[in-house]
Amino acid sequence: MSTQATSIRRSRDVPTLVAAAREGDHRAVARLVSLVENDDPVLPEVAAALAPHTGSAQVIGLTGSPGVGKSTSTNELVRAFRARGQRVGVLAVDPSSPFTGGAILGDRVRMQDHATDSGVYIRSMSSRGHLGGLAAATPQAVRVLEGAGCDVVLIETVGVGQAEVEIASLADTTLVLLAPGMGDAIQAVKAGILEIADVFVVNKADRDGADATYRDIQGMIGLGERGPGEWRPQVVRSVANRAEGIDDVMAAMDKHREWLTRPLPGGAGAHELTRRREARAAAEVEAIALGALRARIGNLRGGEALPTLAARVAAGKLDPYAAAKELLSTLEV
Amino acid sequence: MSTQATSIRRSRDVPTLVAAAREGDHRAVARLVSLVENDDPVLPEVAAALAPHTGSAQVIGLTGSPGVGKSTSTNELVRAFRARGQRVGVLAVDPSSPFTGGAILGDRVRMQDHATDSGVYIRSMSSRGHLGGLAAATPQAVRVLEGAGCDVVLIETVGVGQAEVEIASLADTTLVLLAPGMGDAIQAVKAGILEIADVFVVNKADRDGADATYRDIQGMIGLGERGPGEWRPQVVRSVANRAEGIDDVMAAMDKHREWLTRPLPGGAGAHELTRRREARAAAEVEAIALGALRARIGNLRGGEALPTLAARVAAGKLDPYAAAKELLSTLEV
Repeated sequence: MSTQATSIRRSRDVPTLVAAAREGDHRAVARLVSLVENDDPVLPEVAAALAPHTGSAQVIGLTGSPGVGKSTSTNELVRAFRARGQRVGVLAVDPSSPFTGGAILGDRVRMQDHATDSGVYIRSMSSRGHLGGLAAATPQAVRVLEGAGCDVVLIETVGVGQAEVEIASLADTTLVLLAPGMGDAIQAVKAGILEIADVFVVNKADRDGADATYRDIQGMIGLGERGPGEWRPQVVRSVANRAEGIDDVMAAMDKHREWLTRPLPGGAGAHELTRRREARAAAEVEAIALGALRARIGNLRGGEALPTLAARVAAGKLDPYAAAKELLSTLEV
Repeated sequence: MSTQATSIRRSRDVPTLVAAAREGDHRAVARLVSLVENDDPVLPEVAAALAPHTGSAQVIGLTGSPGVGKSTSTNELVRAFRARGQRVGVLAVDPSSPFTGGAILGDRVRMQDHATDSGVYIRSMSSRGHLGGLAAATPQAVRVLEGAGCDVVLIETVGVGQAEVEIASLADTTLVLLAPGMGDAIQAVKAGILEIADVFVVNKADRDGADATYRDIQGMIGLGERGPGEWRPQVVRSVANRAEGIDDVMAAMDKHREWLTRPLPGGAGAHELTRRREARAAAEVEAIALGALRARIGNLRGGEALPTLAARVAAGKLDPYAAAKELLSTLEV
């Protein structure tokens, strides 16, 4: 490894890193995402440097239970966007592994197909270290990829829990992958995925039960109430590991993008995409602010305020609301 | 329905509700959990009234992907605890459905076996309305069940995402259910479940692949580093829908409870259970405090401060850190 490469991998010199990332240096992009992941003190500076270059990339969320074929599907979607001449960033977000560096394993085993394509950035990230959690960290990482010139950013998450719902809310368009036999329609409702999906993809559509899964999802969508002009989630089938049905997935996403950017009645040029992105920015700003407040709470009285109150709560001597009130008064808010 | 029943179902009279719950009135318990769920303003009063009666119930977390047999297993565990003469509360928490009242469906379709047993309380809850989220709401609901005299509280969650990990951290002992063919060992690592499980239950152990799943999990546990005296996760097999293996699950939980309450070296009577409960109380107090701060942020400048800043962030005119800083200065923290 050259001295320059080593220095970029360790650098916290923001102007140099951002300039290199904007010129397409993969190591600089990786380094910036690491800074995001670790909630580095230079992050506000990174965000300020990137802000003017952000806001135009298409952000796509992709989620689904383990085993439905997310990595294979992402791989094929990357190929399809590349065929359109677009630069693609992939963020594989692992909200369920707050403790270990699970992301490292992910980086190694996935998507080797695109390893030599300079128009593709692939990066895993976990929430380790980021006080605002992934809800705060992920949009910063998206900004890094946008700043590096990506036209499309795919955010892939494992599972369909609340964290995934939050991350899906960061996307312009959210794909939910299903596979036959992975759970019935009631499970889909339980998991809250009907509310977040813009496009359902029944992957492994060559397997037994695919038609039933397709019908179940269509049935659940049919039961949902929606007003005139509201988006009706699309359902498409694919067999990602044979590259089948990817065109249909792309077409459904294109259709959703058209819907997102149609003029709203009386909206004076505003559209749904603007509305979504402003809501996203609000969540992001709030998460950063709450992260900062959380840090202050953690540091109160040399870090002793919270544990001392907690011990009294655990012993049944104080109720948690009274404890929280005392904590906030110490914070002098 | 009697007038008294109706009035309890709607009551916000805390002393009456808490007194009724302590006498075993199921409607009062249900009402108190609803107040928790909706983050009712009387909640601090509820918490204060319950505090002296809390801290002794055994809290068990049970999680796993959709389809592994969580409801059936919970059902059998309730039966086993009842056979020991213990009063049991079940909280079915649905972290992945922040939008719909998914919990309502859950209440109807599950665990009708225990519907007429006065020693069993079963309640679903979602995070709708609770500003601190389920991390704040769930422990309050556990307190309600403790206050109502439950010796054991089972917290069942859907899925294995970050929200489930958070909820699992509320338990003294966490069971993770697996089923053959639901995913391999790599998926288990990805989902972060190795870190949260005290006991693994390979359910549907009569199916093909059960031995492989058992071996995979044992293998993953073997790879983990643990110091002397640390708990090594147990792995047991069950076929919950035939009530097989439930004794083994109970024995593994008993063993973990023994470990939790063993005296710590140099701990002057403290044990792991105390440590866990204090950490839990700290997270709870912090979540309540952050929920209150979040509400204040949302109300700044008549609710306009955050959206105004967010619009500038979405347009690339302001970076999110600068926006958060401005928000906090408005909060005058």
